[in-house]
Amino acid sequence: MTQHTNQSWGGRFSEPTDEFVAAFTASISFDQRLYHHDIRGSIAHATMLAKVGVLSEQERATIVEGLEEIEAQIERGEVEWSVALEDIHMNVEARLTDRIGAVGKKLHTGRSRNDQIATDIRLYLRDEIDFIDTELSRLRHGMIELAAKEADTIMPGFTHLQAAQPVSFGHHLLAWQEMIARDQERLADCRKRVNVLPLGAAALAGTTYPIDRHYVAELLGFERPSENSLDSVSDRDFAIEFTAFASILAMHLSRMSEELVLWTSSQFDFIDLPDRFCTGSSIMPQKKNPDVPELVRGKTGRVYGHLTSLLTLMKSQPLAYNKDNQEDKEPLFDTIDTIKGCLRAFADMVPAIEPKRDNMLEAARRGYSTATDLADYLVRKGVAFRDAHEVVGKSVAYGIEQRKDLSELSLETLRRFSTVIEADVFEVLTLEGSVAARNHIGGTAPDQVRAAAQRAREALAGREARR
Amino acid sequence: MTQHTNQSWGGRFSEPTDEFVAAFTASISFDQRLYHHDIRGSIAHATMLAKVGVLSEQERATIVEGLEEIEAQIERGEVEWSVALEDIHMNVEARLTDRIGAVGKKLHTGRSRNDQIATDIRLYLRDEIDFIDTELSRLRHGMIELAAKEADTIMPGFTHLQAAQPVSFGHHLLAWQEMIARDQERLADCRKRVNVLPLGAAALAGTTYPIDRHYVAELLGFERPSENSLDSVSDRDFAIEFTAFASILAMHLSRMSEELVLWTSSQFDFIDLPDRFCTGSSIMPQKKNPDVPELVRGKTGRVYGHLTSLLTLMKSQPLAYNKDNQEDKEPLFDTIDTIKGCLRAFADMVPAIEPKRDNMLEAARRGYSTATDLADYLVRKGVAFRDAHEVVGKSVAYGIEQRKDLSELSLETLRRFSTVIEADVFEVLTLEGSVAARNHIGGTAPDQVRAAAQRAREALAGREARR
Amino acid sequence: MTQHTNQSWGGRFSEPTDEFVAAFTASISFDQRLYHHDIRGSIAHATMLAKVGVLSEQERATIVEGLEEIEAQIERGEVEWSVALEDIHMNVEARLTDRIGAVGKKLHTGRSRNDQIATDIRLYLRDEIDFIDTELSRLRHGMIELAAKEADTIMPGFTHLQAAQPVSFGHHLLAWQEMIARDQERLADCRKRVNVLPLGAAALAGTTYPIDRHYVAELLGFERPSENSLDSVSDRDFAIEFTAFASILAMHLSRMSEELVLWTSSQFDFIDLPDRFCTGSSIMPQKKNPDVPELVRGKTGRVYGHLTSLLTLMKSQPLAYNKDNQEDKEPLFDTIDTIKGCLRAFADMVPAIEPKRDNMLEAARRGYSTATDLADYLVRKGVAFRDAHEVVGKSVAYGIEQRKDLSELSLETLRRFSTVIEADVFEVLTLEGSVAARNHIGGTAPDQVRAAAQRAREALAGREARR
Amino acid sequence: MTQHTNQSWGGRFSEPTDEFVAAFTASISFDQRLYHHDIRGSIAHATMLAKVGVLSEQERATIVEGLEEIEAQIERGEVEWSVALEDIHMNVEARLTDRIGAVGKKLHTGRSRNDQIATDIRLYLRDEIDFIDTELSRLRHGMIELAAKEADTIMPGFTHLQAAQPVSFGHHLLAWQEMIARDQERLADCRKRVNVLPLGAAALAGTTYPIDRHYVAELLGFERPSENSLDSVSDRDFAIEFTAFASILAMHLSRMSEELVLWTSSQFDFIDLPDRFCTGSSIMPQKKNPDVPELVRGKTGRVYGHLTSLLTLMKSQPLAYNKDNQEDKEPLFDTIDTIKGCLRAFADMVPAIEPKRDNMLEAARRGYSTATDLADYLVRKGVAFRDAHEVVGKSVAYGIEQRKDLSELSLETLRRFSTVIEADVFEVLTLEGSVAARNHIGGTAPDQVRAAAQRAREALAGREARR
Repeated sequence: MTQHTNQSWGGRFSEPTDEFVAAFTASISFDQRLYHHDIRGSIAHATMLAKVGVLSEQERATIVEGLEEIEAQIERGEVEWSVALEDIHMNVEARLTDRIGAVGKKLHTGRSRNDQIATDIRLYLRDEIDFIDTELSRLRHGMIELAAKEADTIMPGFTHLQAAQPVSFGHHLLAWQEMIARDQERLADCRKRVNVLPLGAAALAGTTYPIDRHYVAELLGFERPSENSLDSVSDRDFAIEFTAFASILAMHLSRMSEELVLWTSSQFDFIDLPDRFCTGSSIMPQKKNPDVPELVRGKTGRVYGHLTSLLTLMKSQPLAYNKDNQEDKEPLFDTIDTIKGCLRAFADMVPAIEPKRDNMLEAARRGYSTATDLADYLVRKGVAFRDAHEVVGKSVAYGIEQRKDLSELSLETLRRFSTVIEADVFEVLTLEGSVAARNHIGGTAPDQVRAAAQRAREALAGREARR
Repeated sequence: MTQHTNQSWGGRFSEPTDEFVAAFTASISFDQRLYHHDIRGSIAHATMLAKVGVLSEQERATIVEGLEEIEAQIERGEVEWSVALEDIHMNVEARLTDRIGAVGKKLHTGRSRNDQIATDIRLYLRDEIDFIDTELSRLRHGMIELAAKEADTIMPGFTHLQAAQPVSFGHHLLAWQEMIARDQERLADCRKRVNVLPLGAAALAGTTYPIDRHYVAELLGFERPSENSLDSVSDRDFAIEFTAFASILAMHLSRMSEELVLWTSSQFDFIDLPDRFCTGSSIMPQKKNPDVPELVRGKTGRVYGHLTSLLTLMKSQPLAYNKDNQEDKEPLFDTIDTIKGCLRAFADMVPAIEPKRDNMLEAARRGYSTATDLADYLVRKGVAFRDAHEVVGKSVAYGIEQRKDLSELSLETLRRFSTVIEADVFEVLTLEGSVAARNHIGGTAPDQVRAAAQRAREALAGREARR
Repeated sequence: MTQHTNQSWGGRFSEPTDEFVAAFTASISFDQRLYHHDIRGSIAHATMLAKVGVLSEQERATIVEGLEEIEAQIERGEVEWSVALEDIHMNVEARLTDRIGAVGKKLHTGRSRNDQIATDIRLYLRDEIDFIDTELSRLRHGMIELAAKEADTIMPGFTHLQAAQPVSFGHHLLAWQEMIARDQERLADCRKRVNVLPLGAAALAGTTYPIDRHYVAELLGFERPSENSLDSVSDRDFAIEFTAFASILAMHLSRMSEELVLWTSSQFDFIDLPDRFCTGSSIMPQKKNPDVPELVRGKTGRVYGHLTSLLTLMKSQPLAYNKDNQEDKEPLFDTIDTIKGCLRAFADMVPAIEPKRDNMLEAARRGYSTATDLADYLVRKGVAFRDAHEVVGKSVAYGIEQRKDLSELSLETLRRFSTVIEADVFEVLTLEGSVAARNHIGGTAPDQVRAAAQRAREALAGREARR
Repeated sequence: MTQHTNQSWGGRFSEPTDEFVAAFTASISFDQRLYHHDIRGSIAHATMLAKVGVLSEQERATIVEGLEEIEAQIERGEVEWSVALEDIHMNVEARLTDRIGAVGKKLHTGRSRNDQIATDIRLYLRDEIDFIDTELSRLRHGMIELAAKEADTIMPGFTHLQAAQPVSFGHHLLAWQEMIARDQERLADCRKRVNVLPLGAAALAGTTYPIDRHYVAELLGFERPSENSLDSVSDRDFAIEFTAFASILAMHLSRMSEELVLWTSSQFDFIDLPDRFCTGSSIMPQKKNPDVPELVRGKTGRVYGHLTSLLTLMKSQPLAYNKDNQEDKEPLFDTIDTIKGCLRAFADMVPAIEPKRDNMLEAARRGYSTATDLADYLVRKGVAFRDAHEVVGKSVAYGIEQRKDLSELSLETLRRFSTVIEADVFEVLTLEGSVAARNHIGGTAPDQVRAAAQRAREALAGREARR
């Protein structure tokens, strides 16, 4: 738990840790990325210790100066991490003591590595959440603007990967935007639970020093100190919740990626992706592989896997801290890195999508996708549901036979199937008419798409303003 | 997509669906549990259609009366579900048309099974969330009151399953309570995203009828209509988010279960569980197996599995609705049932835990668990950290040799290791002194435990008041 | 552990099990499906007990007759299962004792519910494995015969969902067949580890009765008795291994399903699926939704979820039996049911796939998919790699400009890019030539496809013969 | 697909790959570990090309010499990997061409990166499997020898973590050994499916060069060439199957770890672990934390996570190669590393377990764990089951009241409960008698344990001999 360097376990241990065991159990190879937040937390802790009189002001100043110099050394790449010192905390502390002497040891008064690591991860994750939030905004922005631009572009809307009804391409992009907007909400909810200070829980029970946890919380920007020391050192909910957020986001990106891969296939040929997001083949110059969406789609597995990993890790662990918990870091770190990479790729790529409007329109035209509109038309003219469907069924069957879309049949021909059909039928049989008629909130009518884009734009701006 | 009963697909299909295929693809065996919410949604839809003039008031009344009678029949067990009618929607609709004739068909105007099922699940899940929320409150209440009662009960606090420092048993129970409080927050956050109306998205693009989605949202108690029709029929985020909430909750319960199993073992023997939560053995009367915690621990796998299942389901699905989505229901339903069962068991069981206070105290005494306190004492007397540790190490080694706890050594003996030790050392060496000294927010001092219990009580009451 | 009906726990229990707890912990609702194997195991056990003299021959006969009658009653639907009797074992045993009196109790001599349930599941799973194996053979058979028939059918081979090189459709089907052949191997390997007898382990340590486990193994067709009693009652590896087999199989089916969904889309339009595997839409008669492949694809999540569930269940469980293990059954049962349903659907559907050969050929033609062949041709004529690639690149660029495939360019035109090109180039530039040239084991040449189909046919026949 | 370095995609690409995209899609950071197997595969390929006349003997020699020199450079740490060259194949090839000129390019004749990477992974994994197999043998060996030594050591056997019946500690260790033996069998089965040669599949369809795949298979020690080129470049079953093997193994290790953690707790105190596998605390010298078992238990999540990751990755991927597949490596590599680390720790640690025999015996004595033996005794004396249970129930109740174990009651006292009890009862009431009486294959009698250890020893020796 606390301060267990090998040298300091004292008399009860009759043999040194096995060298392999030392490497197997050390965490410095991956927790070194926490150095900045470890030092930030230590500075706040020292400042509080001075405030309550455990450290003198002079001691605090020496410690803070020492820590800042160590941070600078790390950033200049001058620090070689020691596996013998196990983790980031001991590496920093040993260095500090080397530098400033025995006063360095005092920094660890009233805390333990158990609450220290919990604090480090929360500080680190909070910063990453804020960065990811910015990327999510950037991605949403790109989707909204492209959607607004493509409100009038018509494509087939699919169910079961079969063309069903024509929709606005902008509308499709705004469906994507809704997914990401929910992700952003979930991230904000997660952040609330990350932003709680565990420091002061010490090893597991709190400390006998007269610490001021509210002050530390304030210094580090946490909303409040945690309520329970046992929970504080054992809680990893926030890591799981973040990874669950990331899993849903990755799932969304996999769905968009699937569509991008389909749309760039020569069978669909709905869009072009700029060359910089693709790779080619020296030998098959006709090929342009949508590598970025494919890879993002593949990375879904990675994120899901980390969620499984963290949930498994915590299953059935008795309180409070167990060594198992060391395994929380790598899945969390790799989830963060993966999500950041995928978001950067998508936020760069989405605004660069080039729709092939003619191909989309032609695909929508080929699928009798306004059949539903004809039925609705008939019902509005007073035809009973069942009868309307029969009329439509026969009309489409005739169209297939003649290789003509419904809108290409003459009025005369259509009237053969029902005499209530009049010239105004063509307003609903055209793709434009069909799309425009779905004119309610959430519907695909171009005016609705523009209005929805505007609402989304405002929501996003409101979000940014509240930061 | 819409209305596809086998009979009505019309001329293009030259052979009937295979009987096995019909059974394989039908959902009525599991979606029948949605009948109440399906009917509730239909009544709201009919009411809106009448408001906007698509139905006459008389038609609306006939439909509503018919639906209510069908619900009553279902609840009386008089309805036999038909696999040929595939799902709950078609089963109800066919029955309605049988009963009230062609006007029954009009109910489906302006909607599709795609938005209907999305609405049904959200209504159903919202009700279940509200019930689960109540059970979470009940469980927290039990934990808080037991904690308040056991604030002064001392047990060993463990890290690495090794006794580390003495803690209050009430403090341990409040650690549990913190976990459940976070679960409840997460559930409330999830509910916000469940409580959005998809109806009106129709098959995927919206409808050409002049529907009023805000009115339907109001009738059904949804916060707002959804923003995008494509997203509305394909979004299953809320099911995943709920299952992620449930997974974290199940993980928490597995940790508590693990502790209950440990504590009821004869090796620990810290608590007794009432017989009604255990099973025995006819042949080994000494045995009392903690079946309920074991089974709850085992059910963790089930909930994690459903989360994996839903995430896998949605990976890489192109928009909008695909038949795959039918697979969203069983994992969600079983997650709900499992969580409700586990919560009921725990909410009943926790208040009935009977601590064996003497055993706990004795276990705490055996572990030199106040060694840290001695070190802190020395530091406060001005001894340097490193030196303090050495003193403690030697004292404990001596105690082990003499088979005495630190608090059982005489002052004289202790002073052999450091002359700064005085009579007041026993205030920190006793378990009571040690526990009482961790007297800050989050610490294990009984007064802190009582204060924390009071804060938790108020937070819970505030929650209930806001309902 | 053994025989713990509520009534029989005797004096130590001062209150009855809570009614909710009784229902929560009972397994009869799902383990009733084991009745046949439970009875089969009991008959073997009784027969062994008679052989070693623990039962008289008369007692054995009475017990066996009683059990057989109970099985007949169950199959006639005359048995109502009792939750109070917890599980299938107690339900059968209570019924037996009702019927034949005290001698029924003797059946449980030398065994426990712990080894009994382990035996039941293994017997049950072994039968299901044998059935699934037959379905896998049926599916492979359908693939092989269709492949042989379509050896000369040309389609584009895809990488990155971009047409890369032409391949034989039969070759593609044999790729599927390879996946299923591996699944079948894995299933056979799993069966070896299922087919070991746990009975005789009793509660956990073996029994003091002079049992003959080799004889029971022989009677039940097990390869051998298990080696260790503690392991026997706690081992659930076989359930996990089976579910891992099922997960890989489900993954394979999801890949084939994805392709079937793509191929039936109007964008690809490579195949037709018979109507009986699809659903339509009353209102959009042009639509034919590939429901069966979509649903099978969706069911992947379910199987993966069960694997997660079982792995989580067993994590960190100390030996020997814990109540957690009751949770092993539902995931296993649902995995079996799901796999059987998906296999039946696929084994019925695959032979009924109707390739649209012209569309496939046309798609292959459009993609400059013989560019690689031209390069190979040039290299064989002595052109350096780098130069060959340049020639091909320029030729394709010219073709794109002229909207002509390479095979449609004249010899004269081609020679403009390289003078080593001669008339024989058209043998490699045609799709037929390109495909035929990949003429080695594993290659796509139609002759290779036919030979591979023949080898697969023989391997399958050999498998069946060895049964 | 093949040879797509950025420079060589030629004219169709109008802009270079984005620098971030290049880094995002490159694999050299993790696939560099395949260098040895990549070079080994290339040498075999070159040798075959020379055999069939595509390369001259001189070219082959130049290439092989160049590759061997590059391998030496890599092992001397002289090679800096280039992200611009994307992966290990291109890095090696570019270096080779730099070194030996244009002839280096010829190495790639008749293959593609798609079949090359599939070959590399299989070669690499095969070597790792062989190493892991050796470690599994070492672990089994340690378990068997400790078990044989501790055959007569008595401990309580647990169900529901409640002492149930006394067992031999050696028997418990052999239960562990059975788990590992099954793991080793599963690994061997997996190896069969790894050991198949994909090379020759080229990009996806095979090659037009007259390659001899049987010869390459022979050179590389593969059992046979693969049957289907499309399957060969897309199949990742072997990685999933290996990870499933690893997950079950990790689960087993987590169970043993859980027991080691329990047994080293002061509540159980059954064993001592040598200091070199533990960590201590400078401030709490009494503490010795079982870090190694805890960490191994924690690593279970990691392995399960990788299995989820790979299954998700492959779900719904259409044939043949997609960029997604690049994501197969890291989960596989980390699974291998994790398993190797855990096995090394366990194979070192298990033989060093020091049982505290007195504590185990005392714990067994306290639990009335021979109650079942008394019942069996009575039944053997002709008492009916139901009556025997009642006698035992009363005897135990009396013992609890008197705080005496059954074996501590006098014959006279026992006969008060049943007159059939005679002096020989003490043979079964003693722990030794109880254990010795379970004397059949799989039972816990010390003689059975020794026999089982001997069988296991021979099986292991037989395995080694067959290598």
